[in-house]
Amino acid sequence: MTRTALDYDDNWLDPEELAHIRRRMPITYVHGLPVQRGDDGQVERVGLLFRTLDTGLLGRELVGGRVKFHEPIRTALLRHAENDLGPLALPTAPLSLTPFHVAEYFPTEAVSPYYDQRQHAVALCYILPVIGDCSPRGDALSLDWLTPSEAASEDIAREMRHGQQHIVRAGLAHLGILP
Amino acid sequence: MTRTALDYDDNWLDPEELAHIRRRMPITYVHGLPVQRGDDGQVERVGLLFRTLDTGLLGRELVGGRVKFHEPIRTALLRHAENDLGPLALPTAPLSLTPFHVAEYFPTEAVSPYYDQRQHAVALCYILPVIGDCSPRGDALSLDWLTPSEAASEDIAREMRHGQQHIVRAGLAHLGILP
Amino acid sequence: MTRTALDYDDNWLDPEELAHIRRRMPITYVHGLPVQRGDDGQVERVGLLFRTLDTGLLGRELVGGRVKFHEPIRTALLRHAENDLGPLALPTAPLSLTPFHVAEYFPTEAVSPYYDQRQHAVALCYILPVIGDCSPRGDALSLDWLTPSEAASEDIAREMRHGQQHIVRAGLAHLGILP
Amino acid sequence: MTRTALDYDDNWLDPEELAHIRRRMPITYVHGLPVQRGDDGQVERVGLLFRTLDTGLLGRELVGGRVKFHEPIRTALLRHAENDLGPLALPTAPLSLTPFHVAEYFPTEAVSPYYDQRQHAVALCYILPVIGDCSPRGDALSLDWLTPSEAASEDIAREMRHGQQHIVRAGLAHLGILP
Repeated sequence: MTRTALDYDDNWLDPEELAHIRRRMPITYVHGLPVQRGDDGQVERVGLLFRTLDTGLLGRELVGGRVKFHEPIRTALLRHAENDLGPLALPTAPLSLTPFHVAEYFPTEAVSPYYDQRQHAVALCYILPVIGDCSPRGDALSLDWLTPSEAASEDIAREMRHGQQHIVRAGLAHLGILP
Repeated sequence: MTRTALDYDDNWLDPEELAHIRRRMPITYVHGLPVQRGDDGQVERVGLLFRTLDTGLLGRELVGGRVKFHEPIRTALLRHAENDLGPLALPTAPLSLTPFHVAEYFPTEAVSPYYDQRQHAVALCYILPVIGDCSPRGDALSLDWLTPSEAASEDIAREMRHGQQHIVRAGLAHLGILP
Repeated sequence: MTRTALDYDDNWLDPEELAHIRRRMPITYVHGLPVQRGDDGQVERVGLLFRTLDTGLLGRELVGGRVKFHEPIRTALLRHAENDLGPLALPTAPLSLTPFHVAEYFPTEAVSPYYDQRQHAVALCYILPVIGDCSPRGDALSLDWLTPSEAASEDIAREMRHGQQHIVRAGLAHLGILP
Repeated sequence: MTRTALDYDDNWLDPEELAHIRRRMPITYVHGLPVQRGDDGQVERVGLLFRTLDTGLLGRELVGGRVKFHEPIRTALLRHAENDLGPLALPTAPLSLTPFHVAEYFPTEAVSPYYDQRQHAVALCYILPVIGDCSPRGDALSLDWLTPSEAASEDIAREMRHGQQHIVRAGLAHLGILP
């Protein structure tokens, strides 16, 4: 995917129209929790993006974003994985579309664990095994591979946006490795 | 929920605006598969709505519809259950938001098993136990309680809209009662 | 279920034979995480048994135990629920036999998060909504209804047997209420 | 794994002891449904073993078998995959131990869809992606890669042992490709 294609994607709905729709309809999202597996197949590390946020602060995020019109969920997940992790990450799409978790982001705090002042979004969350080299792009400074203990820690939780630490912990629990 | 409330809901986005958005963004949907359980807890019957369709023909459908802006998934599911099954159905909301199946409806045939010429929709599908009396409303003529064999049959499949027979079968499989 | 029936159950395999088999084969277990739901269907409290352990110490445990020969999983789960929570607990059997978690207990420490020096057991873990009155029996001193924060806390974790705090947290994550 | 190791495994409990336990306790099983994926990540083919059965007849079966004492579930699944598919099949262990289906085999017909006159077994069923070359061994004549339509057909169902066609269909439903 070239930068031109990304630009096109970014502009696929013009910002005003997107901002308008975000106040009228829930937006469909996908998230991927990047993981690395050991020889026995068990997940040993999970990957979190470290980013400059809109606010200028630094913070951590999962892979993911909007599903576009007419775009299958798997395609959207792999598009965001490429966008966030680079073209050599070699992610594996999920076998089943049943997510391990559904995160409801509301533009009002405390309705759910997930808060996003821009929008109401319904995010389908998938485990995303990657076996290649990750080279974060755009505004991502790094992708850090954390142990389950680190990923579930309060320190990391404080750095995560929008309550996404709950998605990370739900993913670790699904994988049987939540400390 | 009174008819006035339903009208309001229908008009909550005006039809033109909704039609416009349906061509720009995936729409978030919920579906419920109404079920009745036996004494041992195993599901014995599943309920399908029998309706007059937009085309004037008769057809079968699952409970469900759009999730509204700022509406939690469970609330949307129970709202559609009340709308489709009447106020005395006594449905039970799902324990977990993890759906048993995700149905992707596309406005183009053969992209997925689900086709809806009006829209691209992503539907989260839940089992919906009901213990009360169902009295279908609006354009629904009846709610028929079918055995697993009937529900999975080709005869019923032919009557179902938008490929929803695949959701019914996925639900039966999840419940361990697919023939 | 009368006390006689329980005695029969306890003696259904004589202790020596059971002890022998426990060193030759994995034992099939079921666990139920008792929950109480709020008006919106979301789980608000989880129930943990407080017991005198074999060691004479006090500790916390989930509902559950062995599956008997020729006993369906749902029957085993409801039998243990009755045994642990009393006959008026009114538990609901799971809709699907797919567990939210599988716990592998090994008689060796650190093979998995679950350790039971008596046996290798494979435990299928289910959410168990109860709406009646729980009156713990036998060696259980109480059933305590905890908030998600309490149930996931380190204090409670220290009181739980066999690593079962990981099952509790996996259950909370599945229900979308892990802090 | 050499033939000697297999012999050892077969004899790990002597046949009389195993036959005895099979009438006293539920036996823990694992099943793998071998699958091949297309470029978009969606499963396109499922693999079924074609075997000479104990009765001398021919029939189809899933990969799988008993879990041994002190053996983790993933290890058991990969051991049976190697045993049934050969050492070059390159199967991928499941990310999560949560199975897509739990099959209860009873030694009495019609208690569940699964019947095995030898035993009561509780089988955890997993999707098993394979990317290598499968060379069935022992009493397996072939591994046939079937389309979803073929795998779900009545013709194949008639050839399957112990009611395993229900596991195949539940797997296809979980993968979103049940016809």
